[in-house]
Amino acid sequence: MLRIDQYTDVFVDYLNERIKSREPKNLYDPILYILQLGGKRLRPVLTLMATDIFESDYKKALDAALAVEVFHNFSLVHDDIMDDAPLRRGKETVHEKWDINTGILSGDAMLINAYQLFENYEGDTFRNLAKLFSKTAIEVCEGQQYDVDFETRDDVTLPEYLKMIEYKTAVLVGAALKMGAIVAAASKTNCDLIYEFGRDLGIAFQLQDDYLDAFGDPETFGKQVGGDIIENKKTFLYLTALKRLDPAHSIQLSHLYSISPQDPNGKIETVKQLFLDSGAAEAIKEEIEIYTNKALKVLNDLDVKEENKQLLREFAQALMRRKV
Amino acid sequence: MLRIDQYTDVFVDYLNERIKSREPKNLYDPILYILQLGGKRLRPVLTLMATDIFESDYKKALDAALAVEVFHNFSLVHDDIMDDAPLRRGKETVHEKWDINTGILSGDAMLINAYQLFENYEGDTFRNLAKLFSKTAIEVCEGQQYDVDFETRDDVTLPEYLKMIEYKTAVLVGAALKMGAIVAAASKTNCDLIYEFGRDLGIAFQLQDDYLDAFGDPETFGKQVGGDIIENKKTFLYLTALKRLDPAHSIQLSHLYSISPQDPNGKIETVKQLFLDSGAAEAIKEEIEIYTNKALKVLNDLDVKEENKQLLREFAQALMRRKV
Repeated sequence: MLRIDQYTDVFVDYLNERIKSREPKNLYDPILYILQLGGKRLRPVLTLMATDIFESDYKKALDAALAVEVFHNFSLVHDDIMDDAPLRRGKETVHEKWDINTGILSGDAMLINAYQLFENYEGDTFRNLAKLFSKTAIEVCEGQQYDVDFETRDDVTLPEYLKMIEYKTAVLVGAALKMGAIVAAASKTNCDLIYEFGRDLGIAFQLQDDYLDAFGDPETFGKQVGGDIIENKKTFLYLTALKRLDPAHSIQLSHLYSISPQDPNGKIETVKQLFLDSGAAEAIKEEIEIYTNKALKVLNDLDVKEENKQLLREFAQALMRRKV
Repeated sequence: MLRIDQYTDVFVDYLNERIKSREPKNLYDPILYILQLGGKRLRPVLTLMATDIFESDYKKALDAALAVEVFHNFSLVHDDIMDDAPLRRGKETVHEKWDINTGILSGDAMLINAYQLFENYEGDTFRNLAKLFSKTAIEVCEGQQYDVDFETRDDVTLPEYLKMIEYKTAVLVGAALKMGAIVAAASKTNCDLIYEFGRDLGIAFQLQDDYLDAFGDPETFGKQVGGDIIENKKTFLYLTALKRLDPAHSIQLSHLYSISPQDPNGKIETVKQLFLDSGAAEAIKEEIEIYTNKALKVLNDLDVKEENKQLLREFAQALMRRKV
């Protein structure tokens, strides 16, 4: 087994070797651009790690890992158009650097390219990867649609929110791990268990993201603290606070989420105080722990060497201790 | 073997049975809408016909045929956004009826749904269908990109134009037929030959479209005659005329393709006269015949019953005699 940063290096080398631009340039240059913008490469690393954990050569998983990363970046390119986002990883988004049409078409090509990477696998491996990929990709689209729908709804429930982040974010984490298991020809039970582990961890990860967005340390948190509050995003914190606050404060909170003041600092501070007073800040920490523990518990049934299981545990715990 | 309209009926029944809306509605309603807008259903019918021609049950090809139609409609939804088109088959386009974000996301879901339809096939059939589909889909994206690029280029050559229509339109016709052959477990040679037949016929079909757009009978031609001229589209007719005209008329033509007069009728008439005078109108008719004959010649080597071959010949000839 390698360290996380070693898997990352191997993966990035492979990506740079495999992803080249070609004609027509206006289709392939944006693909090269977004894939070289960086990012944590968390998902493809999980794919490589999973193959290793099931005691197969992780290098066999490089194409599946690349498919996961290409798909993830496809979804970023199209989501950034939908969100009208100017920046991604501190650089111009594809539709800003080129235009919306380029973003649409290059994104489409990336989705197809991801499928093509599975052609490097034979028989059932190919079939199982493509099938899992399609199921996951459709769920990611559904999650994105729920996210869009929630913007204009004022009756979003917590279970609905949890389902949205499960689809939009968590299933791809589960799928990334399961793809590594499929490449390693792991048993069906093992494949399903590692998927569950990843999915539950993915939900905890996204909730942690929601928490850090409001309460992260501006010194260490990569993004602007309070970004979700500025954008009036109905996260777990908001939905919980709204439910738990007395009527007067609940109305205050929902009013604050109907305005977009030029200087957002006052709004951010008031909202954070409401998140704390309502117990929403505590509640999300509990929820993160619930999902992390759920993920860890699944590992008990996983049929792999104890030391490999320990690596997954440490990985899960490190993710939950993160400040960025 | 059935008649074309019988295949169409069976296909449309299957489509209506299989394509339903579900949650989230804003993702799936637009998919149902565009797929029920109608259209000639030419591509899926070719898939069914091909399976029949290779003496297998055409009903086995219904999922592959549906995948082809879903993909074709995915490309229409995304292309209509890029072209800012208000109407499709006389009805509002998806991004007009909903919005651009809905068009992007529903399109993405359709592309994934098309892949999922192949899951109804086993082993090598699944693999061969998915692989052909990916190759074709990427070429369609490349063709669309060339088409977009050509809008702002003034040095497009005829071979470049032919490559663009081959990728944007013709390869999907070839692939639709080849998918039917794959479902019928036809030999590799037969699969490749029917692909070639479809691709060459697809090029002839698109050139015929270019011709009819300028010289079709307004009484029978479905779309507005002169549409390409109004939009300054650099079609085969334009590129040929530009090359063959004397310098003065060539400059006149390229000037006409730089303006968009309120009343386009004068421009349309002048351009059509230049197409005729330059010999471009004759040249495109010859080119259509060249590609049709190329397609028909491929059939000689196809290893199927003579009566089935005859059906493909008649189909090709009917397509080329069409007025719409």
